[in-house]
Amino acid sequence: VRVLCVYMQQYINPKMSGLKLFFDTFSQPSRAVLILCHAYKIPFEPKLIKIGEMEHQTNEEFAEVCASRTVPAIDDDGFQLFESAAIMKYLVCKHKLPDHWYPADLQQQAKIDEYLHWHHANLRMGITPIMFNKVFLPKKTGQPPNEVIIRTSEKILEKTLKLLESHFLKDTKFINSESISIADLQAVCELTQFWVAGVDPVADKPRLSQWLTDCQKELAPHFDQVHEAVYTARDRGTFKGML
Amino acid sequence: VRVLCVYMQQYINPKMSGLKLFFDTFSQPSRAVLILCHAYKIPFEPKLIKIGEMEHQTNEEFAEVCASRTVPAIDDDGFQLFESAAIMKYLVCKHKLPDHWYPADLQQQAKIDEYLHWHHANLRMGITPIMFNKVFLPKKTGQPPNEVIIRTSEKILEKTLKLLESHFLKDTKFINSESISIADLQAVCELTQFWVAGVDPVADKPRLSQWLTDCQKELAPHFDQVHEAVYTARDRGTFKGML
Repeated sequence: VRVLCVYMQQYINPKMSGLKLFFDTFSQPSRAVLILCHAYKIPFEPKLIKIGEMEHQTNEEFAEVCASRTVPAIDDDGFQLFESAAIMKYLVCKHKLPDHWYPADLQQQAKIDEYLHWHHANLRMGITPIMFNKVFLPKKTGQPPNEVIIRTSEKILEKTLKLLESHFLKDTKFINSESISIADLQAVCELTQFWVAGVDPVADKPRLSQWLTDCQKELAPHFDQVHEAVYTARDRGTFKGML
Repeated sequence: VRVLCVYMQQYINPKMSGLKLFFDTFSQPSRAVLILCHAYKIPFEPKLIKIGEMEHQTNEEFAEVCASRTVPAIDDDGFQLFESAAIMKYLVCKHKLPDHWYPADLQQQAKIDEYLHWHHANLRMGITPIMFNKVFLPKKTGQPPNEVIIRTSEKILEKTLKLLESHFLKDTKFINSESISIADLQAVCELTQFWVAGVDPVADKPRLSQWLTDCQKELAPHFDQVHEAVYTARDRGTFKGML
């Protein structure tokens, strides 16, 4: 059973806001955007799109707003936008959030962009196809997972975690930076997807575990609030042993 | 035989520049960055990394600069950066290129970011794995292509081209904009990869063909100069019939 995130209501007064946020807390990039909104009390009207029930394909209001049919997406007083990295950058700039989230300095900003662009074909391609093929698809359809895609993703994931350690977190506390940014938010919310099935992808990697804990601390209490549905799935053991 | 791009020399005086650009003109995102540099006579020291000869894995200078071992990458007086979208954005801002390349306006900028982030898991994932598996890998190793990966990419490509038409180019001459931007550069240089094998991926799509021609016109003569090696491969028929 999906947990409806009641805690959200505390920050939201729809009448005060023209921002609609389409999301699912089982979507990694949705969680990243949600945490940012909660941390800075950016008012928004929550529009839950249950991807497990294919609402991203069937919800008509969502189709009007988001041509790619991917969550998260926003409609900010008529301005429509998808892609989580673009949304986070837009919100940081619009609401003038503290500089460390997306630095104004050209070179610092470029190093955050480097991660955010690298993310798609690397950390995300290393995790999402595994979760989809090994966990969600078999649970939903009973079909066996696609082994070629799983092996490809496993190789990407291994390479990706190494590069996170040896490059992006080599000399800095957070990704290419001493302070937390939207790059960390994007990365950490992707990694936590494995938690749904009770697996910690960085358990044997002390540097990455430390960074994950540092992110969690920086983002408290919003990190745990937004991960409520993830924790519930993990604690119920719904997908245990599938990864 | 690889064509060494002699035309480049006209813009380059290495002594005047601290910018090293690592590239291969057979790399789609490398071409995007090269076209931008040529169009604005941004001085750079060219560092050719022949990916077909695995130099991205073996070149030691490249390894020092680029942890991901992907082209393009830059070393700008010691500032190292990979990921083409991050590099283009950095160069546009540093050299104060005309606003349309990467608009200062928050919402216009966000719509360019939307494409640039969408690109990785969509247009790029629709084209690069097909080229790699159907063209470069069989040519290099004689191994048969991976059919599962090809079918997955073909589905992505079909969906992607539809969305380019129905969303990104629906109401505007260029991607989410009336003027050309680095989003168009990124997209168009990915599409032209099929030209290597003599295939036009938008031949039966009038709107996309028109947009491709518009990009080519806007980017003349730099577009054709940077595509010199692509044209040569196409004209020699090196990879003909493989796609």
